[in-house]
Order: sequence, then structure tokens, then C-alpha cells
Amino acid sequence: MRTHITEHDLRHHGDAEVRDGGEGLTDLAVNVRTGTPPEWLRERIAASLTGLAAYPDGRAARAAVAARHGLPVERVLLTAGAAEAFVLLARALPFRRPVVVHPQFTEPEAALRDAGHSVRRVLLRPEDGFRLDPAAVPEEADLVVVGNPTNPTSVLHPRGVLAALARPGRTLVVDEAFMDAVPGEREALAGRTDVPGLVVLRSLTKTWGLAGLRIGYVLAEPSVVDALSRAQPLWPVSTPALVAAEACVSPRALAEAEEAARRLAADRAHLVAGLGEFEEVRVVGAAEGPFVLVRTGAAVAVRARLRGLGFLARRGDTFPGLGPEWLRLAVRDRGTTNRFLQALDQALTLTSG
Amino acid sequence: MRTHITEHDLRHHGDAEVRDGGEGLTDLAVNVRTGTPPEWLRERIAASLTGLAAYPDGRAARAAVAARHGLPVERVLLTAGAAEAFVLLARALPFRRPVVVHPQFTEPEAALRDAGHSVRRVLLRPEDGFRLDPAAVPEEADLVVVGNPTNPTSVLHPRGVLAALARPGRTLVVDEAFMDAVPGEREALAGRTDVPGLVVLRSLTKTWGLAGLRIGYVLAEPSVVDALSRAQPLWPVSTPALVAAEACVSPRALAEAEEAARRLAADRAHLVAGLGEFEEVRVVGAAEGPFVLVRTGAAVAVRARLRGLGFLARRGDTFPGLGPEWLRLAVRDRGTTNRFLQALDQALTLTSG
Repeated sequence: MRTHITEHDLRHHGDAEVRDGGEGLTDLAVNVRTGTPPEWLRERIAASLTGLAAYPDGRAARAAVAARHGLPVERVLLTAGAAEAFVLLARALPFRRPVVVHPQFTEPEAALRDAGHSVRRVLLRPEDGFRLDPAAVPEEADLVVVGNPTNPTSVLHPRGVLAALARPGRTLVVDEAFMDAVPGEREALAGRTDVPGLVVLRSLTKTWGLAGLRIGYVLAEPSVVDALSRAQPLWPVSTPALVAAEACVSPRALAEAEEAARRLAADRAHLVAGLGEFEEVRVVGAAEGPFVLVRTGAAVAVRARLRGLGFLARRGDTFPGLGPEWLRLAVRDRGTTNRFLQALDQALTLTSG
Repeated sequence: MRTHITEHDLRHHGDAEVRDGGEGLTDLAVNVRTGTPPEWLRERIAASLTGLAAYPDGRAARAAVAARHGLPVERVLLTAGAAEAFVLLARALPFRRPVVVHPQFTEPEAALRDAGHSVRRVLLRPEDGFRLDPAAVPEEADLVVVGNPTNPTSVLHPRGVLAALARPGRTLVVDEAFMDAVPGEREALAGRTDVPGLVVLRSLTKTWGLAGLRIGYVLAEPSVVDALSRAQPLWPVSTPALVAAEACVSPRALAEAEEAARRLAADRAHLVAGLGEFEEVRVVGAAEGPFVLVRTGAAVAVRARLRGLGFLARRGDTFPGLGPEWLRLAVRDRGTTNRFLQALDQALTLTSG
């Protein structure tokens, strides 16, 4: 294990890349499924607007999420996106020695630091394919945060490896924000009650295109749900978000998500195969998320060239453990990917020329 | 000043009264304007749903709110309802001796307690018409929270009296959640930059029927806005809520709110006159909010009877400083009020009979 003190911009996110002059470009920086939210879901949310004068009542959505994972409602907490969950975890639980497994989504560490914690980092290494060796996590850690599948590496850790990180007196936070993009959600720990201290975070943002709505949820032991809940403001989740949550865990929605996950796997294979044709580009293997992480020598110049050619790639250097040679690319449909690969060819040629 | 240690249920709110078996009853317990949100606003919000896949971008709404109050954007913080603002204030500012002026909305004190603070209460008295004597606030208080107009008393404090509470080193929080229901917003401190330590909270919930959407804002010195902002989760306000905020501070909306405030004043006068006919009922005078506070001997029984007759009144005894003899009644249109007064007549007759 290495503990880095490098200052990364933990608060940099793909949406800023889109916003700051990226309008009109093909966005491979933000990991939200394109063409979302689907029309049926938008209609369900629109229908909720007639009831906005009433305060939100989260009971039906909570029950629906609980049923979807086969859990009692006491193990479910609805949150205003996973971002709120990170803040609640950082503030409401009594841990002292938090460890974050990097590279991963930077908000958990940012929230821990904002809450006054010193955060130890476990840095997974490219030469290991960013795979997790449980022995790398310090034994004294009483909070461990890990993503699965991991943003930005797209690595899917075996759930047995993650469950092996559980200890008495340790909270094990597994961010499964992208798990619904994995066919069959294999390696999911959501719904498990036999892993002590397990806290699973879920998002409905990426698969359903609800980034603007702020909805996600936490699955944890009732005492942890209680503690997090007490740190929430009153009425933390809006009525449209609650309606969306209930809709997105319906059998129809789960079937649609599964179908989307399978399509994504094919689209990703196409992207990875295309990237494989470039000698200068290395793709982190066994990608299982809706994005791939790539390494290329002149990534900074390539990214700038891509932008000029109409494509936004996510810089990798804001993720602890990664440097300027990394880029993250969202998986899109074959047509978009083909156009992107052509642009990448140009960008690489221009850069090396 | 008296400091009470009575345990009130600070987390009881009118919406629970509606929810727990109150469906179908005429609701005088929740202070949201009826017939809201208006169609034009609902359409604006509905139009935002096509953009839900993008993360929220609060810049336009923040600028619109700043312009509406003639303030620079650095003095504006958008929040997921006033409820979030209370939690942020309780957690992010470095005060030590908070004072809450009661009776008032109970969330500020609940949030302060949840954040580990001991809260001193200043209890305004019915025999003084719940008017505020600034001398009642302890000099050493470094955070003072007061509502204007005040929920549940409906008393509108002169802004000079409130401004006189400002001190170097003291944060003065004025909850103006109901100020837009006062014609001309007279006594508003929103927009003032000459009151040191002033923090004004605003809600768009009540006038616009957006309780389900979670949107409000804070006006304060830039350093306070910064501190509160750092305690917020990433993307704290949803896209539909941002769109609503921008719409609700437009000139058209402000004119509509002013018109609604004038209509409300007339409707309230009708209600107060009607209540004045009952010997057993005393109305707290000079009501200026969209509700009135009344005292009646057998309030518990009267409230139960009213429920049986189809009307929900808000119990007063969950507000520090009030006892079981108090009820809060939302102002409704004349027709609804007339029906309510008939029901009240029956309820009082049955109770005394």
C-alpha cells in the first residue's frame, strides 16, 4: 500500500468538461446512458408534478426499493443522489481511520475530508490491472470505501474479495453506482445481509438518465440507516425523484436495464476492439462498466485534438493513482464509437506528426 | 427570557397530519397555497424533464435569485428547501451559543440539536401578542434564529426590531419562508447588506406549491455562503427545482405572488372575523401570514371533532411555548372558510354540550 499526498482536484467531474465550452460536442466524458430518461419514465415523472404542493412522502419508494433487493425497509435509505450518501456517511458514522481504495470516484474522499477526516489511500496499480488485493487494506481501517464496478478503471471486483474486507467494527462501503450496467449484476453485494458492516450505495442516475433529478439509495444495517437518516434534512428527496425511484425498480424497468446492460457489453466490446488497433493506446483490461480507461503517451494533446474534432474525453489525472497519460471514455453506440475511432486516429496522427 | 426544557415533538409537521389518515379531508394543517403550482409553472418544470440526463447546473437560477433581491451572486445559496438550509447552518458555522426565538417552526432547533448544540430558547408570550422584545435575547448569543412572519403565530416583526438583534460576531438568521405572502413584503430583510451577520432564508414552497420539489435559498455574506456551500453535497438542487426557482423570481411570478398576497389578506380577514364570533376562540392578533393561531379551551376535543367533520387543523402543542389549547389554521378561500366556520360551530357545540 502506498499513501500519496498528491493533491488531485477531487471536485472535478465530467459534467464540468461538458459545461465549460463542451456544448455541442459528442460527450464521452459523462457516464450517463444516452437517450435517457426513456419516454415512459419521463411521463411517470411528469405526472407527479400535479402533486408538488404536497410534501414528499418517501414510503412507497422505500418499500419498492426494499422489495427489489429482498430487504426489509429498515435497511433502505433514499438519498438525493449518491453524492448525498457520501456526505451522510462521512458525517454521521463514528469511524476514525477511513481508507479509500483508488483510483475511484473522488466524491467519497472529498466528503470525508470536508468532514474533517484524514483519509488513507490504497492505490491499486495499473501493472496489476487495478485489481484489489485485500491484504493492501490496512487492518486498522474502520471504514473502507471501494467502487464496484470501479469508476474510472471499469474493473469489476469479485464480490468474495470485497466481502473478505468486512471486519467486526469496520464499515465496508461498496459503491455500486454502475452495477446495474453489468449483465445479471453479477458480483453485486446489494441485498446481502450476511456481510457485517456492509453499506451498498446505488444510483439510478447513469442507467436511467436522472442525473438532474438527484436520486439514489443506501442499503445497510438498520442502525446505520437510522444514523444516516438522522443526518439528513427533513424531506431529503423530492417527489419527482421518489416517483422515479419507484418506477426504476419495477420489474419492467429491471428488464429494460438488463437489456441495456447486454447492449452496452456489445458496444463496449466494439470500442475496446477498435482501440486495440492503435499501438499507442492501452485499454485497461476486462472493462465491465459503461466506460473504459485508456493509457496513451500524449493523452493531454490527444484529448485537446479530440475536442477540436468534436469529441469530449474525460481527463484521468484528477483521479488519485492516475497521471496525465490516462483518459476515460464512455461507451456509446457503434455508430458514435466508429466516428470517435476515426477522430482518435486523426488525433493520434496529428499528435505524433 | 425563560428557558424551557419541555420535550416537544420538534419533528412533527402538518404533512404528517394529512398523511396519517387525513386524506380526503379539507386540509387546514399545511401552509401551502391551494391550487398550486399554477399551470404555467408546472409546464416550465415539465419542460425541464427532457434534460434530466445532465447533471444540474445551478448558475442561471442563482443569478436570477440574486437579481431579484439586487444582490451579487456570491450572496446567494440555493438549497434543497429551507430544511436543508437549517441543517447547513447548524453544521457549517462556528457558533457556540445558539438561541431560537419560539414559538416558531421547529426544524431550526431540531437541526441545531442534531448537530450537537445546546439550544437556548427565548419564549415569546401570548400575553404580549408574541411580540419580540430584543432585550429578551441573551447578549452572549452568537446565533439567533427568528421567523418573520412567524410560523405558527403569524406575527410579523418590524424589521427594525430584528435588525437591532445584529451584533458583531453574531449570526442573525431570519426565516422569511412566508414573507412572500405579505403584501409588499414589508418588513423583509432580504436584499439588505447593511445588517452584519444577517442570514435570510427564503422558501418557494408555500406560495408556489413546490413542497414536493425541495427548493429554497439563503441570502448571506459571501463567506457564510461559502461555508454553507462547502457542507452541501455535490449537485444539491435538482434540475426541476432550479428551473422552478428561476421561474418563481421572474417579474411575472413576483406580480402573481403579490396578487396572491393581497387576496390572502382579504381571505384572512374573513377567517379572523368569522372566528371572532365564537366566544370560546381567541385569535392571535395582527396575523400577517397565510395562517392564524387560535386558542380555545377544549382544543384537543375540538380538533378531533373537526376531523370527524372533514377538517384538519394543525395541533399547536408541538411548538415550544404553546400548549394543548392552541390550534393553527391555514387561510383558505372564503367558501372553504365558511364551511370550516360551520364545522367549527358544530365542533364547539358538541364539545361544550
